[in-house]
Amino acid sequence: MADVQPVITLLTDFGLADHYAAAMKGVILSINPDARIVDISHEVQPQAVEEGAFMLEAVLPYFPKGTIHIAVVDPEVGGDRRGIVITTPDGFFVGPDNGVLSPALPDSARPRHSRSVIKHARLPAGYAAFSIDNPRYLREPVSATFHGRDVFAPAAAHLALGAPVESFGERLASIEALPPFRAVHRRDGVLVGEVIHIDRFGNLVTDIRADDLANGDVTVEIGRAVIHGLVRTYSESSDVAALIGSSGYLEIAAPLGNAAQLLEADLETLVTVRRVVVRLKRSQER
Amino acid sequence: MADVQPVITLLTDFGLADHYAAAMKGVILSINPDARIVDISHEVQPQAVEEGAFMLEAVLPYFPKGTIHIAVVDPEVGGDRRGIVITTPDGFFVGPDNGVLSPALPDSARPRHSRSVIKHARLPAGYAAFSIDNPRYLREPVSATFHGRDVFAPAAAHLALGAPVESFGERLASIEALPPFRAVHRRDGVLVGEVIHIDRFGNLVTDIRADDLANGDVTVEIGRAVIHGLVRTYSESSDVAALIGSSGYLEIAAPLGNAAQLLEADLETLVTVRRVVVRLKRSQER
Amino acid sequence: MADVQPVITLLTDFGLADHYAAAMKGVILSINPDARIVDISHEVQPQAVEEGAFMLEAVLPYFPKGTIHIAVVDPEVGGDRRGIVITTPDGFFVGPDNGVLSPALPDSARPRHSRSVIKHARLPAGYAAFSIDNPRYLREPVSATFHGRDVFAPAAAHLALGAPVESFGERLASIEALPPFRAVHRRDGVLVGEVIHIDRFGNLVTDIRADDLANGDVTVEIGRAVIHGLVRTYSESSDVAALIGSSGYLEIAAPLGNAAQLLEADLETLVTVRRVVVRLKRSQER
Repeated sequence: MADVQPVITLLTDFGLADHYAAAMKGVILSINPDARIVDISHEVQPQAVEEGAFMLEAVLPYFPKGTIHIAVVDPEVGGDRRGIVITTPDGFFVGPDNGVLSPALPDSARPRHSRSVIKHARLPAGYAAFSIDNPRYLREPVSATFHGRDVFAPAAAHLALGAPVESFGERLASIEALPPFRAVHRRDGVLVGEVIHIDRFGNLVTDIRADDLANGDVTVEIGRAVIHGLVRTYSESSDVAALIGSSGYLEIAAPLGNAAQLLEADLETLVTVRRVVVRLKRSQER
Repeated sequence: MADVQPVITLLTDFGLADHYAAAMKGVILSINPDARIVDISHEVQPQAVEEGAFMLEAVLPYFPKGTIHIAVVDPEVGGDRRGIVITTPDGFFVGPDNGVLSPALPDSARPRHSRSVIKHARLPAGYAAFSIDNPRYLREPVSATFHGRDVFAPAAAHLALGAPVESFGERLASIEALPPFRAVHRRDGVLVGEVIHIDRFGNLVTDIRADDLANGDVTVEIGRAVIHGLVRTYSESSDVAALIGSSGYLEIAAPLGNAAQLLEADLETLVTVRRVVVRLKRSQER
Repeated sequence: MADVQPVITLLTDFGLADHYAAAMKGVILSINPDARIVDISHEVQPQAVEEGAFMLEAVLPYFPKGTIHIAVVDPEVGGDRRGIVITTPDGFFVGPDNGVLSPALPDSARPRHSRSVIKHARLPAGYAAFSIDNPRYLREPVSATFHGRDVFAPAAAHLALGAPVESFGERLASIEALPPFRAVHRRDGVLVGEVIHIDRFGNLVTDIRADDLANGDVTVEIGRAVIHGLVRTYSESSDVAALIGSSGYLEIAAPLGNAAQLLEADLETLVTVRRVVVRLKRSQER
């Protein structure tokens, strides 16, 4: 197994009805017939860079070391934004330099500014980024509208074949990155997060992390609903419930229905978590 | 080709927009870089255990001997239901013990009770089932809500690498199973079946089997529609028609339209088949 | 890498919710365990032969020489239309002889008749077509309704294993083909094309080719909208804009919205392109 190639993953907003993802796979296999390609999703909401970053982050822990992740949510394709390759202790990341590759960086290297705002992030030790300029790794002529096929797919195919990351182009001191997905601690101890993903079941995935919830003695507020305490599994409740989901984030679910519909919640809907203190309980329940 | 690994198939209700199926693939490839993974479908209706079982049964004849089938339609994940591995003369089945793996068993071993009711089924000779308990084969910590990723994917990856099925856990005398998909013969000779799957074309797939229809001299009733006789191919009729579909079940199709919409039919809509006897024909047509 | 098998691609209108594409993959892997299978799309509109041909054409340039393309959009399955294999300098094509495989032929060999009309096309030098009749390559019994699984999947699996194309059946002098996707030049110099694909973003892909547009000095009319000139990338305009898309066809896009919805356009909506001549400009803008 020593000679098995790294996996190449694809995450895009191209949708599955179209043939765009297939064109990328054809390009990869033309350069690298032994490539092993895994789709993460092609159903990121169109041009939703932040949702793409969330889904990339959500799968990273489950892929082998050395995996090459391509993420293409790229509203500015053909404009000024660069195409980049990032090398990290865990693997490689290929895509536009617009924040979608933020999960390549550790939280500590990502900006601490307010949610959804993209900022420059310096690359910490052990990480490096390069622009993709070397014509040897491009599919010429490069279309102005489909760098997934002409820039990122060939870059990943060559990386998997062993092309040195330094040969792709100019070394970059910083890349564009989103802040970590993490709820805000208000001064009064209340956590304020938001919905960052709604899955097929209507479960609302928030940016509130398990390790920000010291214990389960909390109330979770979303819209006009107040949920008391956490359950451990979907099957423990038939009503709207809160639990720690499989990625370590707080989720709000309606096991027999669709929480997003029941609560009229959407991406960016605010979610508030309060620690339960007995003497305050009445007012919180109001 | 002697050393080609068994195929691993994935059937879930996770949907394709989300990254959950991809996380399972990452786990499999982390354990077993040479795994060959094929998606059956991730679009089983949410928590529709019976539809999942139907789709699993529908593809079984087409996969190579030794294939490892993972099926995850798992409303009780994290609750009391067990995770199991079943070994059969045809291959392996991995998933929750809630009926979705019923097609692993021959019809003769499945319960004879009324449709959709899950019962214990004893494993016949040549078949064995084991709970998945051995921590060596689990991805720790096991999430309470995503056994697909933490229990079933690693189990399948290890099976493909040759892990002995006896090493997964306790041997089980029986598993939960659904009755065979098979219409009921009434005493008067009438067959009463139901719609068990609606495909993309709106074709209504029933649980009425070709070998229960001695010949094509039948009328098929669904809702207020009566269809006389069977056609052989979709292109033989421009109207609503009945035919034996590619899985050996009676289908009702509208080649130029959508039978499900035209007939206002849904999963579980009843379908009645009568043998044509000449002197009764008038009354049947009423 | 010399012994890597050709890629097998799948393009169908089966949808992804159903298990039909998976059954084809199972059949391929049962015959040919080392097969490398890539999905182009399974979301061609049901029975839309022409759209299937367009999507096949759109991906061809990106797959390796020798690739085996299966395309199954097959409203007449089980009827008189033949199943065929085409060998070309670029690879192999497998599917029904109903026009969906038209992109196997060079434009010069395709009929010159009006759009969407299928005609016989003689095979030029270097190309050959054979009916699929040899029972050695069929999955018996052949279902009357699912040749994708019982005829085309096994044919492709055997081709990838090296079965000689001459052994599949009778050599055919001509096949059914659609005219090239190409707008009509009117005598007055105006180009009249149509929408042939609408992608996930609502971009309208037309059959007007870049090389029919001598330069960008054009107006593009669709419905009541008139677009002046072309942009190079989606991000250059916030309004409805026209540009050369990644497949070399003129596209109409609304970078911040959905052009198909904004313009109330559909497949076959006409698109007119006029060269800009200064003294005519006023009347064109009316």
